[in-house]
Amino acid sequence: MICSSSLSMSNIPPASSETSDEPQPQVRRIKTSPQLNRWSRARSIRSGRKLDRSALSFNTELRITKSGSPPARSEEEQIELTMSSPKRGNSRSSSSSEDEREVNGGKSIFMVSDGTGWTAEHAVNAALGQFDYCLVDRHCPVNTHLFSGIDDVDKLMEIIKQAAKEGAMVVYTLAEPSMAESAKQACQHWGVASSDILGPITEAIAGHLGVSPSGLPRWAPEREKTLGEEYFRRIEAIEFTIKQDDGALPRNLHMADIVLTGVSRSGKTPLSIYLAQKGYKVANVPIVVNIDLPKTLFEVNPEKVFALTINPVVLQSIRRARAKTLGFDGELKTNYYDMDYVKEELEYAGKIFAQNPVWPVIEVTSKAIEETAVIVLRLYHDRKHRCSMPRISKRY
Amino acid sequence: MICSSSLSMSNIPPASSETSDEPQPQVRRIKTSPQLNRWSRARSIRSGRKLDRSALSFNTELRITKSGSPPARSEEEQIELTMSSPKRGNSRSSSSSEDEREVNGGKSIFMVSDGTGWTAEHAVNAALGQFDYCLVDRHCPVNTHLFSGIDDVDKLMEIIKQAAKEGAMVVYTLAEPSMAESAKQACQHWGVASSDILGPITEAIAGHLGVSPSGLPRWAPEREKTLGEEYFRRIEAIEFTIKQDDGALPRNLHMADIVLTGVSRSGKTPLSIYLAQKGYKVANVPIVVNIDLPKTLFEVNPEKVFALTINPVVLQSIRRARAKTLGFDGELKTNYYDMDYVKEELEYAGKIFAQNPVWPVIEVTSKAIEETAVIVLRLYHDRKHRCSMPRISKRY
Repeated sequence: MICSSSLSMSNIPPASSETSDEPQPQVRRIKTSPQLNRWSRARSIRSGRKLDRSALSFNTELRITKSGSPPARSEEEQIELTMSSPKRGNSRSSSSSEDEREVNGGKSIFMVSDGTGWTAEHAVNAALGQFDYCLVDRHCPVNTHLFSGIDDVDKLMEIIKQAAKEGAMVVYTLAEPSMAESAKQACQHWGVASSDILGPITEAIAGHLGVSPSGLPRWAPEREKTLGEEYFRRIEAIEFTIKQDDGALPRNLHMADIVLTGVSRSGKTPLSIYLAQKGYKVANVPIVVNIDLPKTLFEVNPEKVFALTINPVVLQSIRRARAKTLGFDGELKTNYYDMDYVKEELEYAGKIFAQNPVWPVIEVTSKAIEETAVIVLRLYHDRKHRCSMPRISKRY
Repeated sequence: MICSSSLSMSNIPPASSETSDEPQPQVRRIKTSPQLNRWSRARSIRSGRKLDRSALSFNTELRITKSGSPPARSEEEQIELTMSSPKRGNSRSSSSSEDEREVNGGKSIFMVSDGTGWTAEHAVNAALGQFDYCLVDRHCPVNTHLFSGIDDVDKLMEIIKQAAKEGAMVVYTLAEPSMAESAKQACQHWGVASSDILGPITEAIAGHLGVSPSGLPRWAPEREKTLGEEYFRRIEAIEFTIKQDDGALPRNLHMADIVLTGVSRSGKTPLSIYLAQKGYKVANVPIVVNIDLPKTLFEVNPEKVFALTINPVVLQSIRRARAKTLGFDGELKTNYYDMDYVKEELEYAGKIFAQNPVWPVIEVTSKAIEETAVIVLRLYHDRKHRCSMPRISKRY
């Protein structure tokens, strides 16, 4: 386990043993020290690139990495690993050689924050989208480790030393300039690749606003703790949206900012929740063949109604999976994922959409929730503000 | 309105009229051209700093800014503006002078993305936390404008020219290196402050992994469109969590990854939803005096139960506001926000927590949802993996 007891407070982490003690000038990636050559070879192995295995006799830090990923996932992941990476087949036993363990482990990214760390996570997540061609399924898994609330330099150093040991890179969001500087210096010193997520954007905004950043971490006592109106409005939006889910309380549709409609499994619920988190009160109304839609759907301002549609083949497969999850596969609602029924329902929905031409019809096939969300919000704001350049605006 | 028809496709935006045509080396902020001096003066006005008003005779681009912020908010915001900035009192009529309009407007940040733009928004949001001492309430409002799906250079240039016109800064997440480079060059050329959110972190990760980024925007046809298992698991978590909200279906508690418990208005629902969005199946169980808790709460693995507590005074004020919203202020549940009742309920909850010492008790007073979320998840992962350095890990 990456978080096993191997984590010691040694002052001389193995990674630094062969690097100079002097701070090094802005060298972030692959360097030429023997230690780093070993790392770069280890990287090659882990990334699945071909490598002369005779070159693998180096004595790198022992490390058995296992992801402590979201719940109930580990088992599937293990299967995924076994299925996708033949090299890993027999290497899970404790007798596997170090290099094989390296292959198992994948590369690590440490995310260090004096706040929650969600900003770092979001940015890393987005950046990893640029490498999805070579992540888990392609033999180059990446493990992220989020360290939040890191508000003193000792903890920070401990984490960076550990990153050096594990050959991890460090990504940080540290509001206090001295902490950010310490992180940068320490990473350079120990030869750890690093990236400052918050510093550059904060600096740019400071220049733009002509005022200085407070330099206070989120939890600093000096920082205002009162949660504003906006905060409670967001909570209200979430609670409203939950109550309105799946066609409940149609009499309240007029209170919604956004009304979504579409057939079952067109993604109304997760989209509603996503939008609610952004502060919009959302109601969703399912379309089912032979079931009358609530009158109120046609009485509310049609400019706030958004129709979702989806490819029938994809919808069928999603419905089949859903039926299995719910355990009514093969009984009761068998026609739920029957292709004729799926098509009939989509056509029925299509007719309703055609009768309400103001409702934009959004094709959601293969779109992630956040992609559909941005389309809905762009239209929503555009309709409100009639911009020639569609944009989503907000005041802070 | 910031998105009015003033937006033209002029090839010589006012901002560039006095700047050199030559690309400039890395000059990001306040420069010394007369045009930029005018901007910096405008900035001073907008940021609320004192300024010699005789210096305000410059003819800057006409602009009446209004935020198209989340729904049903505009009205309150107008009030907020009037209340917080005496200068703005009578300046809302069309006869108001330009400088007053500048004061009304606040500073703008354009966020440009070839994807959804949520990464840019998240980063800007976090960075703005460093300026909360001088935002809306302190006369220095900031308007953000998100331009998503910007996948060709013409649209990109149009936006940057508009930013130059409006004196906005540009923050971008552009996967294609040539687009990012164009953005950088154009911003330099037109004297627009800018910040690349995705480039540096992507580059750092590329160096770390030893592979190249794909350079493909999210919606590029070449990028894989299939939504993985993880995606559907997240949706399942959201749906599970909605169904379990507010103590519903206690028989399903064993299926939850995380169970939250606490009195009404301790923030269980929004926290549940936040965690669900991250892929965790969450159930929440309300604690109400004289109402028995479901047996299953004591039968599930206590390591997945998290108790929430809150300061009674704060809870009272939240409950009072809630009662008003729901319209039962002064009738029915009057004791809901009665201090004696609030205290009694918190004490009752405290006793239950004491009887279940494995449940961590998390104090949520004045904590934002995402702050409490990180505490819950850190404990959750820590209990699963027994790390000496608490971390939240995930595999990509």
